[in-house]
Amino acid sequence: MHVHEFQEMMRRIYFHRDSERGTTGTYNWLAEEVEELGVALKEQDRKPMMNEFADVLAWLTSLANVVGIDLEDAAISKYNDMCPKCHKSSCECPLPKNH
Amino acid sequence: MHVHEFQEMMRRIYFHRDSERGTTGTYNWLAEEVEELGVALKEQDRKPMMNEFADVLAWLTSLANVVGIDLEDAAISKYNDMCPKCHKSSCECPLPKNH
Repeated sequence: MHVHEFQEMMRRIYFHRDSERGTTGTYNWLAEEVEELGVALKEQDRKPMMNEFADVLAWLTSLANVVGIDLEDAAISKYNDMCPKCHKSSCECPLPKNH
Repeated sequence: MHVHEFQEMMRRIYFHRDSERGTTGTYNWLAEEVEELGVALKEQDRKPMMNEFADVLAWLTSLANVVGIDLEDAAISKYNDMCPKCHKSSCECPLPKNH
């Protein structure tokens, strides 16, 4: 499924709620889901981990819907088969942080 | 682009770095990117917002690569044209939180 298609599916299921909740409220739920993902990662139990990865993507696309941004467009614009910082197809940026 | 394809692109560009950094380090960068997205949302400047949305998806897929989870598979397994809680195609869960 394309990133855009997933975002559109989230729009169909949740936009009436997301738009009412607004940017800050939706961002806060995204942040909470990221925390829950952190807990699931520590527990190393695969099913809850998958569940939380799904939730983070769901809330990220919900938030993108609220502010009118196409996540796939944003992602491909920045990451287009190379690192946007060092412009290599296999990143050679100085550590510690790349991307 | 499919979610899976984006995740594979991130693997090609970053997995040598991501796998070395490990789960906790990669999760911490994801959390930092989510905070940066929050700042960009408050500033309401479209280009930085798109940039931060891209980064959150990039680090989420990097993290999924580190722990060996297919983000698209996880997302579709949970969100399959309906809310996983109320099972409606247009969510009717009690507020405040849905998803």
